[in-house]
Amino acid sequence: MSPAVTLFLMVVSTALAGSVPIKTLVFSTATNTNYIEMIPQRPMNLTAFTLCMRVATELSGRREVILFAYRTGSYDELNVWRELDGRLSFYMVGDPVLFKAPKLGALQTHLCVTWDSTSGLAAFFLDGKRSLSKIYRKGHTVSPGGRVILGQDPDFYLGDFDKHQNFVGEICDVNMWDVVLADSVIQGMFAGEREPRGNVFDWESTELRINGDVEVATRELYTPEADV
Amino acid sequence: MSPAVTLFLMVVSTALAGSVPIKTLVFSTATNTNYIEMIPQRPMNLTAFTLCMRVATELSGRREVILFAYRTGSYDELNVWRELDGRLSFYMVGDPVLFKAPKLGALQTHLCVTWDSTSGLAAFFLDGKRSLSKIYRKGHTVSPGGRVILGQDPDFYLGDFDKHQNFVGEICDVNMWDVVLADSVIQGMFAGEREPRGNVFDWESTELRINGDVEVATRELYTPEADV
Amino acid sequence: MSPAVTLFLMVVSTALAGSVPIKTLVFSTATNTNYIEMIPQRPMNLTAFTLCMRVATELSGRREVILFAYRTGSYDELNVWRELDGRLSFYMVGDPVLFKAPKLGALQTHLCVTWDSTSGLAAFFLDGKRSLSKIYRKGHTVSPGGRVILGQDPDFYLGDFDKHQNFVGEICDVNMWDVVLADSVIQGMFAGEREPRGNVFDWESTELRINGDVEVATRELYTPEADV
Repeated sequence: MSPAVTLFLMVVSTALAGSVPIKTLVFSTATNTNYIEMIPQRPMNLTAFTLCMRVATELSGRREVILFAYRTGSYDELNVWRELDGRLSFYMVGDPVLFKAPKLGALQTHLCVTWDSTSGLAAFFLDGKRSLSKIYRKGHTVSPGGRVILGQDPDFYLGDFDKHQNFVGEICDVNMWDVVLADSVIQGMFAGEREPRGNVFDWESTELRINGDVEVATRELYTPEADV
Repeated sequence: MSPAVTLFLMVVSTALAGSVPIKTLVFSTATNTNYIEMIPQRPMNLTAFTLCMRVATELSGRREVILFAYRTGSYDELNVWRELDGRLSFYMVGDPVLFKAPKLGALQTHLCVTWDSTSGLAAFFLDGKRSLSKIYRKGHTVSPGGRVILGQDPDFYLGDFDKHQNFVGEICDVNMWDVVLADSVIQGMFAGEREPRGNVFDWESTELRINGDVEVATRELYTPEADV
Repeated sequence: MSPAVTLFLMVVSTALAGSVPIKTLVFSTATNTNYIEMIPQRPMNLTAFTLCMRVATELSGRREVILFAYRTGSYDELNVWRELDGRLSFYMVGDPVLFKAPKLGALQTHLCVTWDSTSGLAAFFLDGKRSLSKIYRKGHTVSPGGRVILGQDPDFYLGDFDKHQNFVGEICDVNMWDVVLADSVIQGMFAGEREPRGNVFDWESTELRINGDVEVATRELYTPEADV
């Protein structure tokens, strides 16, 4: 978080600010076995979404990194990547939409991606700052019935992982909505607001199934809302 | 918008903040055909102006990028560029005035340029932050009777476009005034204020004429004024 | 200072902001003799800690730099380093935990490191921005009875210093707590908050013992709390 944000929150919202305990996932090593499955709260037939997370990784150089994978039996329904060249991307059944952006790194980034079927508008947000918009898969619908995992890219249904693509680092606060949230709402969550809670995934209540050696720890996340 | 400004506005003006729907232009590919013509609300004989927009582009390296073009039959009356070397510039009939500035990039920048004939003072603003001032075309008047386009640089009246100079990316919220606005007003608009509305171009009402493959979509823009 | 910080301070805390005098240590040359011993306020048997400091150094290239050393008779109980390759690390009896991070440099960085025995979670904070978490020495306890020094790395109890590892630059505001502080509290201290005071080391009261040529000067530190 920038010093200004910090400072602002600190002084203006002293009476309200605090921290909340939050689960966080630490993937310590490159493997093709370790992953977390997240159980969605509703079927994932989506004509729009906002997907957010806090992520930090020391992986650098030319290395693909999977950030989120939702796969049905036949397709990568919604996969979010850091590509070999550092660009961010997401794939919905077929070719991706790619975005240049500041590189994800060892200091934590609040990352969101939004997409709406009607307009096809897609965008990333890094620490609340919006990328340009791109037009992608206008009219498409994400299909339900698959599984969502963090840490690995399934090349078929929950299998065929590649340790040169897996996630190594820390990831937490993965939330998803079935609508495109306004820029202001995304900026608020970057700054620690805990509302609105995700209706597809709500990190505070979503069931996590651990597979292999992933550390699930608890740390304090700053929020301007706590301790009221 | 910086998270700090956003956050500041968000929390301080929670009761007032919200978002407004805004048209946005997505230029997906380098072409010499795609452009948007903007119809001004008054004749463009100007002895001062403030021109603002929100812009993001993945074009990088040594590439000229046209940001705004106002051309009469014989002259480039007011053209705003990102130059080959990344500097920002504007041209009023002849040689430009050039400004070093942080590079425009894939995350959205709020960009303004101001000029006043009496003093000749010219300046850019990036995300509300003012450049140094330069003296340019003291005593000059911008001539009326031309056409304003986004996306291409007309080397004659609405023609001879060059796809190595066109705009690729997203541009929106293009507003223009026939006066130099105060720094504080520009900073306010960067932060999402919707007043004062432009009297030469007001993005919320200006007629846009689409030529070729330019996507006109609607997205939410943060504003501290909405939902009052 | 960023415009946002400026704006924030200007508007919100005009009545409250100010500065406090603070001791600062200037290590001018590479030696194997100059150091400061800090006397802790309580025995250093620790199952968790937060250690913060403000540090600036012109040492660059492949050069180890010791930032904090706590050694008992037999062990490096808690040593914080900038490593040869620029990574940050700390050692508790044996192998270190290493973090990639923006390089420490000639402009002052507010640096914190946190660790908790129960979860093993370890993290650095640079200017309030959190690194990824790593799991380190779960279940370990730091032992009491040693000595803490700034400026040199003791390879045995207060001796065998190496001038190719010593600290050259400025260091101040070294504070330590026997708990992991919340992110928000660390961000607050980065921004100048003076509470909560450290209960292992409190820079405002901790006894410093000067050895050799270390300049102890007083300068003003910004704080949003002063001049109330």
